[in-house]
Amino acid sequence: MSVPENSLAYPYPISMKMYREQRERLGASLRKAFPEGGHAAVLQAASEVPINSTDCNYLFVQESYYYYLFGTEIPDTYGAVLADGRGIVFIPRLPAEYATWMGPLPTPDSVKAHLEMDEVHYVDEMEKVLNAHGVHTAEVMQGTNSDSGLNTLQAKLPEGSLLTKSTSFLFNALTNQRCYKTAIEAGVLEYVCKVSSDAHVKVMQIAKPGMSQHQLESTFLHEVYYKGGCRRVSYTCICATGHHGATLHYPDNNAPVEDGTMALLDMGGNYRGYAADITCSFPVNGKFTEAQKIIYNAVLDAHDKVMHAMKPGVQWVDMHLLAIRTTCSHLIAAGILKGDLEVMMKKEIMQYFQPHGLGHLIGMDVHDVGGYMDGCPERPTRKDCCRLRTARPVEEGMYLTIEPGCYFNAALLEMAKQNPDIVEHLNQDKIAEYAKFGGVRIESDVLVTKDGVVNYTVVPRTVEEIERTMAGAAFTKEIEVYHN
Amino acid sequence: MSVPENSLAYPYPISMKMYREQRERLGASLRKAFPEGGHAAVLQAASEVPINSTDCNYLFVQESYYYYLFGTEIPDTYGAVLADGRGIVFIPRLPAEYATWMGPLPTPDSVKAHLEMDEVHYVDEMEKVLNAHGVHTAEVMQGTNSDSGLNTLQAKLPEGSLLTKSTSFLFNALTNQRCYKTAIEAGVLEYVCKVSSDAHVKVMQIAKPGMSQHQLESTFLHEVYYKGGCRRVSYTCICATGHHGATLHYPDNNAPVEDGTMALLDMGGNYRGYAADITCSFPVNGKFTEAQKIIYNAVLDAHDKVMHAMKPGVQWVDMHLLAIRTTCSHLIAAGILKGDLEVMMKKEIMQYFQPHGLGHLIGMDVHDVGGYMDGCPERPTRKDCCRLRTARPVEEGMYLTIEPGCYFNAALLEMAKQNPDIVEHLNQDKIAEYAKFGGVRIESDVLVTKDGVVNYTVVPRTVEEIERTMAGAAFTKEIEVYHN
Repeated sequence: MSVPENSLAYPYPISMKMYREQRERLGASLRKAFPEGGHAAVLQAASEVPINSTDCNYLFVQESYYYYLFGTEIPDTYGAVLADGRGIVFIPRLPAEYATWMGPLPTPDSVKAHLEMDEVHYVDEMEKVLNAHGVHTAEVMQGTNSDSGLNTLQAKLPEGSLLTKSTSFLFNALTNQRCYKTAIEAGVLEYVCKVSSDAHVKVMQIAKPGMSQHQLESTFLHEVYYKGGCRRVSYTCICATGHHGATLHYPDNNAPVEDGTMALLDMGGNYRGYAADITCSFPVNGKFTEAQKIIYNAVLDAHDKVMHAMKPGVQWVDMHLLAIRTTCSHLIAAGILKGDLEVMMKKEIMQYFQPHGLGHLIGMDVHDVGGYMDGCPERPTRKDCCRLRTARPVEEGMYLTIEPGCYFNAALLEMAKQNPDIVEHLNQDKIAEYAKFGGVRIESDVLVTKDGVVNYTVVPRTVEEIERTMAGAAFTKEIEVYHN
Repeated sequence: MSVPENSLAYPYPISMKMYREQRERLGASLRKAFPEGGHAAVLQAASEVPINSTDCNYLFVQESYYYYLFGTEIPDTYGAVLADGRGIVFIPRLPAEYATWMGPLPTPDSVKAHLEMDEVHYVDEMEKVLNAHGVHTAEVMQGTNSDSGLNTLQAKLPEGSLLTKSTSFLFNALTNQRCYKTAIEAGVLEYVCKVSSDAHVKVMQIAKPGMSQHQLESTFLHEVYYKGGCRRVSYTCICATGHHGATLHYPDNNAPVEDGTMALLDMGGNYRGYAADITCSFPVNGKFTEAQKIIYNAVLDAHDKVMHAMKPGVQWVDMHLLAIRTTCSHLIAAGILKGDLEVMMKKEIMQYFQPHGLGHLIGMDVHDVGGYMDGCPERPTRKDCCRLRTARPVEEGMYLTIEPGCYFNAALLEMAKQNPDIVEHLNQDKIAEYAKFGGVRIESDVLVTKDGVVNYTVVPRTVEEIERTMAGAAFTKEIEVYHN
């Protein structure tokens, strides 16, 4: 991959200052952890990934920790951050004939200018260059999933006296750092959320019975790329309609869009590594039935109650409980569940109706790093909370999704019926009416401010907004700021 | 991935008979190679591929040899072909809770019905089932690149008395079989080529100076998916304009489309594994300059001459030589090259203007398998031919790209100038006029018939057709059939 020559494809120009600031934050951590100096952080970029055994590669995706610090999509590079925050990128020495196929080869000078990097050298000069900077130990880190431990990269650098692979310091420092977004990062996240919001609005406007789900996906992909410069999305689009809405990660997107059903569309663009993650739910024919309104408004109330409660210092687990309690109370009011709210919450009944957490950290990865770390609260054990991807208290600078949902999933309802503690609370006739309903999820991406949140997601949310937008009215709304 | 419930997303219904026929062809090879019986072929499907160390996967791509025989996109499955041509698919036994996330789990019965397979069992039953069929040895094969040897799959089955990994028979039989398309396959290839052709026409119609290259790519992706059901393309789109056209696999697609330049767009949809691979070249403002016409018509003449010469029995290397000789003669007529055609061909001068082969086999892989195999001609050594991806004689049933090109690539022209045998033939003043030209490639996908070829690619090709289409005229053309 050659160095991009211009930024026209990227309507939102990302300042290289963002990456410099991120390196300087890591430099400060290095100085604190190693006051004697001489220790550097070395990050490994991703490599091209072949599609099975063909001559083709998947569209390249840079490793997130590396991208976060060095801002380049060139594969097979390395980057070092010194204790003073200076950044050095090391590029591979490619055979000259690659230029015929891939364009002008990156040189240290061209990459240095493009990335506004302190220094750029070839990979085979790394040890020498680091030595010259007085570095006597360097931790080499490859991106590793902080939740599952997944690590797909193969270490390519020989470990020696200088380079060690122990990543305890580096992994913890960087993972924690990524949880708190800078002002420049917030601008990028706002941009990709706006582009993705606009694309959701477009899809809502063109959706109608008789289409195929794949046409909704195609429209979203086109909108975020053509207008927003997002060459890829942050995760495979979920374009569920009808009963497919109850399948949380519905992967197929190839069924017909049937009249009278709800759509649940979970789709988010990706802009130079930064993710959006938005879900809209709406009736495919543009008009809610009363039965659809009950579930939709239950979830919307949960969503809105959390928006009005979120601020630094609140417990994320409490936000989750607030959401599922709210939805539960609506299900009781509608006669779908019967009995006492407190009793049902104690029985953890909502595990059968919202089998996922309220939301998750988001940033460069859609499920961003740092959810569970040493020194942070552990995963809750309650069955209606244990899917949460973090249990950390909410803090300023965190960026999170708020995504309550309510589903009529056949497998889960069967389990509920088998549970003697639960079955007495189920109004089975009412539930049977929702057998083909699928589900509703309402998902927004919010930045935690000093006294609340900013919701960067700007899409129709109320029943009235959705019906008006789907009837052809122009949709305009400002970003919502909550001071709680 | 659950089993698709319907075929609405796929406007072209693929008959399961196609895969049955392909298994029966392999069965015939098994009977011939192992007349004593008892030997089966076992193929391994691809697995999901995580994006670096995130929680997300790349959009799943099934392994081609496996897909070719069993027609399913379910990952982590296996398939067996018995000597009588019967097919057995083995599916993984997934935990029940996957259903909440991925939809109804595949069962032997549901998969058997969907694939019209002779038998479907769980993977852990494979040894037992094969034994019951009297199989005493089975070759396990994973897709391996027949050119580079690339093999990305990890063998997951234990080798034992029954299962052996020696794939010499299986690899050769299947690779060779894939080179000769059946009538049903030809229908699918015609469909994906038509969808991709239509998308090229659309891109040609919307292209104009001032856009960004990425908008051309986005439009193509949307057209083939929204209208044609191609969820992915067969290779990363090459949307080169201006001097980028000289970079053969230009990967960035993010530069501005500048007035007065040529576009070189190499893009092809993929329909259930089957590939199209089409290149159109045209002036971005819709009107050829005289200088552009010279190069364009040179390449078009090469393309057309090959179309009129292709038939069973001709040598592919001769077709390549015909193409580059034709282009060379135009460069002489235009005064770009000077001297005698025969002398220049002897000096292999076209290696500097078309540094790639005339085309390649295509089918389930865009660079399809079988180019160089035991018993087939070896790679030519001439420097103007050595990039050919096959040297096999042309035979009925083969499906090939015809893609002559002519490029003004700075690195190659510099090498040409350094070559004392070549420099005397270069009119450097004329070549300097083309310094920012980029290149022209004209690529069509053709099926070899008993006396010629059918060109499934239906796009504007002549200067007049292109100018008319870009001026807004409707484009209609029939598939061209050549009896040579």
